[in-house]
Amino acid sequence: MNEAQLVARVRELFSTRIGDDAAIVGDQVFTTDLLVEDVDFRRATPPRSIARKSLAVNLSDLAAMGAAPSIALLALALPAWAMETVDEMLVAFAESAKEHGIEIVGGDFSRGDKLTVAVTAVGRIVTRPLLRSGAKPGDRVYLSRQVGGSAAGLQLLGRDLSSYGYAERELAESAIRRQLDPEPELALGVRLASIAEVTSCIDVSDGLSTDLHHLCAASACGAEIDKERIPVFQDLLACGPRLGIAVGDAVLHGGEEYALLFTSSLPESQLSTRVGRPVYAIGRMTRDRGVLLKENGKTQPLEPKGFDHFA
Amino acid sequence: MNEAQLVARVRELFSTRIGDDAAIVGDQVFTTDLLVEDVDFRRATPPRSIARKSLAVNLSDLAAMGAAPSIALLALALPAWAMETVDEMLVAFAESAKEHGIEIVGGDFSRGDKLTVAVTAVGRIVTRPLLRSGAKPGDRVYLSRQVGGSAAGLQLLGRDLSSYGYAERELAESAIRRQLDPEPELALGVRLASIAEVTSCIDVSDGLSTDLHHLCAASACGAEIDKERIPVFQDLLACGPRLGIAVGDAVLHGGEEYALLFTSSLPESQLSTRVGRPVYAIGRMTRDRGVLLKENGKTQPLEPKGFDHFA
Repeated sequence: MNEAQLVARVRELFSTRIGDDAAIVGDQVFTTDLLVEDVDFRRATPPRSIARKSLAVNLSDLAAMGAAPSIALLALALPAWAMETVDEMLVAFAESAKEHGIEIVGGDFSRGDKLTVAVTAVGRIVTRPLLRSGAKPGDRVYLSRQVGGSAAGLQLLGRDLSSYGYAERELAESAIRRQLDPEPELALGVRLASIAEVTSCIDVSDGLSTDLHHLCAASACGAEIDKERIPVFQDLLACGPRLGIAVGDAVLHGGEEYALLFTSSLPESQLSTRVGRPVYAIGRMTRDRGVLLKENGKTQPLEPKGFDHFA
Repeated sequence: MNEAQLVARVRELFSTRIGDDAAIVGDQVFTTDLLVEDVDFRRATPPRSIARKSLAVNLSDLAAMGAAPSIALLALALPAWAMETVDEMLVAFAESAKEHGIEIVGGDFSRGDKLTVAVTAVGRIVTRPLLRSGAKPGDRVYLSRQVGGSAAGLQLLGRDLSSYGYAERELAESAIRRQLDPEPELALGVRLASIAEVTSCIDVSDGLSTDLHHLCAASACGAEIDKERIPVFQDLLACGPRLGIAVGDAVLHGGEEYALLFTSSLPESQLSTRVGRPVYAIGRMTRDRGVLLKENGKTQPLEPKGFDHFA
């Protein structure tokens, strides 16, 4: 079974509420994510980063639903080595929860060989929920911010960059920060939900290509996006190649971005004004089911080469 | 840090809602538990049992709060070997959810070296929440049902019992069933919450001795219980010793029982009538902080020798 088959199976067995970024029950949304040592982070990852990231992953799911976060629960499996840093991790959870105005109301601890962090987050629907399934042919496809930084940061983590110039080191530093301390788009999600012309939304957790495929599948549409219109992380275009980073791959397929990918009938300038900050139109939804990428005047299928949880 | 220190730390950092069996937020209660391969179950444990148990553990927390269950979320870390049995596990989750009238609304899957099951359960407070902290000196201490079976079952799992008599094999079978497929006391929890004279409640997950200590600490009381009044699982008293089981330890300290341990000012016959089924008075809450056990006319301290998540 791959992840898509598993999700199909749980929808069949459990609930058709499963399949969006979070499940809607009444005016609440619920989401849960499990982060495991050696899969989602390393033992060397700073405890603060493990905490902030595992909360951010869940809060980003709420953002993609247009929900305001209310509470979170936390279950940890702790190997002996982690007992030394668990307090640092708990402090970081508390700090991050405070920043997002939520309360962590549950905590379960057990032993385990690998540090495992399970977070459940609960949000409140303020106006209406955003779904993956509302996009219509002709809608513009939007990104909320620049992408590619997180994947670049992952490749640069721990590398000695002392031989590189100032611009490369600057880029590396901010890319690593994006990777270790991602920012969920919570305020934006609530704002988008309040705009009737926003038709669908997902967060870029697996990578732009893969998440666009998810959105297209849920909306029973295709999409055509323009590579030149994708906003690229800071100086990544200029500095990335000199650092040995395949920039195109980082931008198109890099996961853990937590930007929002959404659709709207409104044009870019109008939607940016309504939102109160720039958002980036990168293409259009199409009636044809394929997901296409336009690059240098040529149009080719965009394969979902982002993160597969069971690759 | 031991578990008590961790819980104290999360109460300090996160929320004073932490510390009961589940956290109360408005008219809802939330709980989360993580079960890890080689800690809470073995690879050889039937997938059906892993599923039923991990749901039961969480539902029992809701029962102890007097809440009716509404939804659950599920996050699994799956090693390669578990991909073959994951469908069986999902079917068992669905079956168990249906039995308890709840919907599983969330599912997250990731890879992991060890099979890890994180369940979050949400319940609804029907009349009022039951807390660990309401017991008063003079209240009777109650158990909802016989205990000792789960610990006995754990010791008997996988043993060849063909040389034993019928009574021993019967006992072993039902003890193993209690261990593999525990029954949360959901209906009882809701019923107890509706009786004003029930003053506190906890579920016996770590063991009678340890959970009684938890209840006493939260209520700032002590307790004195009478060993002869503790209801013992089926024929365990007679058959246990012949099977090599230390019956006293199983009864006093055996975990994973999911009976409810609660207190009330009402006498046994009156409370049983109000509840509509037998409940068992095993002692009294005391002003003195100690937890005591009366046995053969002698009274001695009852040490918390149940399950310590970090022993």
